[in-house]
Amino acid sequence: MPRKTRWDNVRRSAAELFAANGFAAASLSQLARHSRLSKPGIYYHVRDKEELLYRICEGTMAVLLQSAQLAADSARDPESKLRQVIRAHANHYWEHSWDLVILFGQRRYLSAARQRRIIALERVYLDLVRGIIRDGVGRRVFHRVDPSVAAFALFGILNTLDSWYKRKGTLRPAALVREVERLFLGGLVARTNRRARR
Amino acid sequence: MPRKTRWDNVRRSAAELFAANGFAAASLSQLARHSRLSKPGIYYHVRDKEELLYRICEGTMAVLLQSAQLAADSARDPESKLRQVIRAHANHYWEHSWDLVILFGQRRYLSAARQRRIIALERVYLDLVRGIIRDGVGRRVFHRVDPSVAAFALFGILNTLDSWYKRKGTLRPAALVREVERLFLGGLVARTNRRARR
Repeated sequence: MPRKTRWDNVRRSAAELFAANGFAAASLSQLARHSRLSKPGIYYHVRDKEELLYRICEGTMAVLLQSAQLAADSARDPESKLRQVIRAHANHYWEHSWDLVILFGQRRYLSAARQRRIIALERVYLDLVRGIIRDGVGRRVFHRVDPSVAAFALFGILNTLDSWYKRKGTLRPAALVREVERLFLGGLVARTNRRARR
Repeated sequence: MPRKTRWDNVRRSAAELFAANGFAAASLSQLARHSRLSKPGIYYHVRDKEELLYRICEGTMAVLLQSAQLAADSARDPESKLRQVIRAHANHYWEHSWDLVILFGQRRYLSAARQRRIIALERVYLDLVRGIIRDGVGRRVFHRVDPSVAAFALFGILNTLDSWYKRKGTLRPAALVREVERLFLGGLVARTNRRARR
């Protein structure tokens, strides 16, 4: 197995194991069995379990950050940028829901220094999203909202999808993301209809 | 101390302790010290720690349910009903944030039968909120959204406020709730402005 593939395999197996059993309960022996590698084969990639946890958290934030940075740097309008961020965040969620369960639920097991590094990455992500919203408010294409409240409201929606969405239900992931986009960007109340009825 | 006041005191102390140390780590001896009651004084009210946890979860859901039921039963329009639900939920959050931390984070320590009862109460709450939204969609005062997605999006926003909102910051709780209401009901994109600019 090529080195890169082996690492992907270790990382994915670790994420599955940590998400299912919790970081504290998962052992490197279990991981070796689960990833079909020897313990030395795992130690080739990481020093210990905590480093694995860190690489999962850091890798998740790196992906989210990269797509938000791409959106923020593009020449598009704030609404399109935000749609791009919403889709990338939601898609990452579908495809790697374990990673996000771990990022939110288990980073307390990281060393203080590594926790600070993850929080710093999250801060950069927050600032990118907040920046897009602030820009939209400034250009008056968005309502005059508090950019922090709006950003955290969006994260609140996106990061709790997994707690209720049934993957085998009738609502397909792409349709769900569209609903979230429409709701967050367009709101619930149909202003035009209300105006028309008056 | 009157019996009712003693129970309120036990309940509040237990909520503080469970939220701070976690249910598993909290002992009845700690609770006795914290609530300044004897252990028999606590056993007068509940059989064990798990019953205390259940009464906290059930009491929280009862308050949320009562206010949502009041809103749903009122003669007001769907938008006003939903505003009422948002305010009641958010206010309960500010005033009893420990209760909600426990409801979401620690109900896994309840017996299976009691977990099912809490989930049943949550289901009634969800159905009330979804019903208000469905009614608004039916009357075309709300956009054609999926009522489940909209209800869970709202809970996602409301139930994560506590993870980022700084009580000592410049944004006052009442202002935050107004922002959430405006954002959820009105959306981010200023349609009228966009139309005007075309």
